[in-house]
Amino acid sequence: MKMPAPDQGTIARRSEIVEALRRIVPGEGVIVDEDELQAYECDGLTAYKQLPLVVVLPETTEQVSRVMRWCHENNVKIVPRGAGTSLSGGSFPLADAVTIGLGKFNKILDVDFDNRTVVAQPGVTNLAITSAVAHEGFYYAPDPSSQIACSIGGNVAENAGGVHCLKYGLTTNNLLGLEMVLPDGEVVRLGGKHLDSGGYDLMGIVTGSEGMLGVITELTVRILKSPETAKAVLMGFPSNEQAGDCVADIIGNGIIPAGLEMMDKPAIRAAEDFVHANYPLDVEALLICELDGPAAEVEHLIERVEQIAKDNGATELRISRDDAERATFWAGRKAAFPAVGRISPDYLCMDGTIPRKALPEVLRRMREMSDKYGLRVANVFHAGDGNLHPLILFDANQPDELEKAEAFGADILTMCVEVGGVLTGEHGVGIEKRDLMPVMFGEDDIKQQQRIKCAFDPDHLVNPGKVYPTLHRCAELGKLHVTGGRLPFPDIPRF
Amino acid sequence: MKMPAPDQGTIARRSEIVEALRRIVPGEGVIVDEDELQAYECDGLTAYKQLPLVVVLPETTEQVSRVMRWCHENNVKIVPRGAGTSLSGGSFPLADAVTIGLGKFNKILDVDFDNRTVVAQPGVTNLAITSAVAHEGFYYAPDPSSQIACSIGGNVAENAGGVHCLKYGLTTNNLLGLEMVLPDGEVVRLGGKHLDSGGYDLMGIVTGSEGMLGVITELTVRILKSPETAKAVLMGFPSNEQAGDCVADIIGNGIIPAGLEMMDKPAIRAAEDFVHANYPLDVEALLICELDGPAAEVEHLIERVEQIAKDNGATELRISRDDAERATFWAGRKAAFPAVGRISPDYLCMDGTIPRKALPEVLRRMREMSDKYGLRVANVFHAGDGNLHPLILFDANQPDELEKAEAFGADILTMCVEVGGVLTGEHGVGIEKRDLMPVMFGEDDIKQQQRIKCAFDPDHLVNPGKVYPTLHRCAELGKLHVTGGRLPFPDIPRF
Repeated sequence: MKMPAPDQGTIARRSEIVEALRRIVPGEGVIVDEDELQAYECDGLTAYKQLPLVVVLPETTEQVSRVMRWCHENNVKIVPRGAGTSLSGGSFPLADAVTIGLGKFNKILDVDFDNRTVVAQPGVTNLAITSAVAHEGFYYAPDPSSQIACSIGGNVAENAGGVHCLKYGLTTNNLLGLEMVLPDGEVVRLGGKHLDSGGYDLMGIVTGSEGMLGVITELTVRILKSPETAKAVLMGFPSNEQAGDCVADIIGNGIIPAGLEMMDKPAIRAAEDFVHANYPLDVEALLICELDGPAAEVEHLIERVEQIAKDNGATELRISRDDAERATFWAGRKAAFPAVGRISPDYLCMDGTIPRKALPEVLRRMREMSDKYGLRVANVFHAGDGNLHPLILFDANQPDELEKAEAFGADILTMCVEVGGVLTGEHGVGIEKRDLMPVMFGEDDIKQQQRIKCAFDPDHLVNPGKVYPTLHRCAELGKLHVTGGRLPFPDIPRF
Repeated sequence: MKMPAPDQGTIARRSEIVEALRRIVPGEGVIVDEDELQAYECDGLTAYKQLPLVVVLPETTEQVSRVMRWCHENNVKIVPRGAGTSLSGGSFPLADAVTIGLGKFNKILDVDFDNRTVVAQPGVTNLAITSAVAHEGFYYAPDPSSQIACSIGGNVAENAGGVHCLKYGLTTNNLLGLEMVLPDGEVVRLGGKHLDSGGYDLMGIVTGSEGMLGVITELTVRILKSPETAKAVLMGFPSNEQAGDCVADIIGNGIIPAGLEMMDKPAIRAAEDFVHANYPLDVEALLICELDGPAAEVEHLIERVEQIAKDNGATELRISRDDAERATFWAGRKAAFPAVGRISPDYLCMDGTIPRKALPEVLRRMREMSDKYGLRVANVFHAGDGNLHPLILFDANQPDELEKAEAFGADILTMCVEVGGVLTGEHGVGIEKRDLMPVMFGEDDIKQQQRIKCAFDPDHLVNPGKVYPTLHRCAELGKLHVTGGRLPFPDIPRF
């Protein structure tokens, strides 16, 4: 992973920058000490580390705005950071950039059960939203595995998913409103408590923009009533092909489970050794299918899923008898990542999406790649929506193993695109998949995406070096950064 | 149109029924006088008239509930009625049924701009919702031609549409919550101010159920921000085929106009004679296409629509220069029904929906039918969504002309189904299209629909004789009326 060389001029201005930030955020909100900066040297993509130039921890939107304005006027780069759990390096720091940490934006501002909305600051954790409304029988649906730690602002930046997103949608489907600070310090509000604002869908553009368009300072999300009933079916299959066909048949029959997850043999074994979920060990693939809703509907759908599993040759079939057993079914799946961490010194967690029907082919080709690279791979999928999470096992202390693991990962993602899928499911591109963007997008596509970036941030000061392998200068892109409120075709407003 | 013979036993009990109703709704809320009853003898399908047994005008949900409970316990039929504008006879009265008029439910209960919702009683007119929020720049999107008169409760019963529904959805897409009284008098609340309640989509079932599942007593709808800009393009074509192709190309290019309407030559001529909208008279077909949104978007789309019109051989092309001219473009379209009323003693307004691409074929075959029946037809369409409104001109004073017009209408609707369309677009089935239901639905389909009816109203007391040409007794339908909260497959809750 090559990042652009840091700008030595900016680094030389460090004390001037720190002084300016301290005028805006007084007290302990500006971090310069090297020991303290180490807490910010990486995010969830821990293979890469870099001390930021300085970290600022604003507490108010006004402070964020003033920091952004000062950096804009003084040509200083910034990197926004939520909880730092990005697996694609979305908040990877830069030696010549100010990291703006949103950790102090940790309050829930409004809970409105009538309208089923929560207004929160971006540093609130995903799980804290559900915790704030669970006593009235509500929850926030998108549930990334990191939900105990990841921030809701980061969820918006990456358009985070999770097990429940098959039925209940990704972050973008559960987000109603945003307050954000644009690169030049202007504060804008998009959406609100209601659906469907008029005009361009700017909230749609911001969601999943990986911190490249500004800094979110407040957001409004939908909460849902917890389902009356939830049951899970655990299904074991003698082959990945049969499990893959079963997934296709469940969805093809019009059933939309609350979750439909698959694990291959190495993942099953690692999870079972770790949490003793009583998974069958004589199967090649395991499916966990959760159905939720009114009891009558769940019972009916469970019967249909059971039949579909049998028709596809399931050799193991269990239905959760109560919530405790359902939790046990899920325990292994939810612990799969740390479980794999126990059987390998290091692993890379990949994230790609494929058409469901390509599952057996992709698994077969992944086994061939595993042989070629001499690296093991364990597979955990959001099978229902075709989102793969292959875990490539390696040992960073062995020479070249990180490079081999990365090359293996690149081959997997390239294959995802080849079979009609996409580079990422829910982890974003960040720096991890940045150099693979041309596998999926042509020059024109990338130019068009960068025109949007230029409309928000013509100087490329906000989260530079992420997502795009090469940066077009805005001047080359049809003068899209021309100001005065008007832009040429395709008419993206400059605010 | 044959209605079942009225039950003489019920008619004989009239004074007992009136007395019971008067105990529930005191004062002038029970109408028995024949002169006064005449105001309720028909709805918008004026070819059919029948005095109701009695009319009751409750003012509170509790009164509605008590009326429903008494009728349920005493085996008396009821017909719900909003403003009585149904064009399919949805609120056509019965000689042996109590008409429950919702005219006194005429209050807007809550306007909430933050959440973009209005809570209203069912007798409020469609237009009154917009009037209540227009001062803040909001409006209610579904806009049936009758919006000045039709009630919002009736809109829900018929899932009403309108010009703007192509872009903004039908009633069902703009409805968030309901309070309704079930046939046995129980009051239930469905949905709320929020989206997506859990469990079965009962609000979806009730919307468009044509008053057969209960009586709505309160509803919550979404309001939208008025668009920044709206412009209309008026396009004239030398043939219906070219106009039809232009419609297909606009939609095929991914443009979703705020309205896309078509008129054929007889309709153009009648409208022009009536309101002098300055329509071109030397064209065979006229399209009016409205684009709304931010100015930049509207300008861009107008250019594209213009080009598409030219490519399809438009001989007349005008773009509204201001809101006054836009209103003039629409004036003729909006007055098309009364305009046709001026050139013929009577007309039947049909309502069917076809795939857009079938438009030229359907128009050609309609001309053949017109020759066969010796009756003129003028055509007004919601072309963008394929919803036809052929107006069949006849003279009820000429022997057999009503029957001929009805047979012509039945042929048109049968053709709509033949080309892959459906029996109705936005007017409902009512009594008008009841006997054509088997053209579209097989025995199994109709049985399945009636199972839903039986789950709500096992005694068939609410709006009987509508929608279904023959009534299965609930006992024949897999015992779906078995009570106790549980029903056999497909498990529709009995509440």
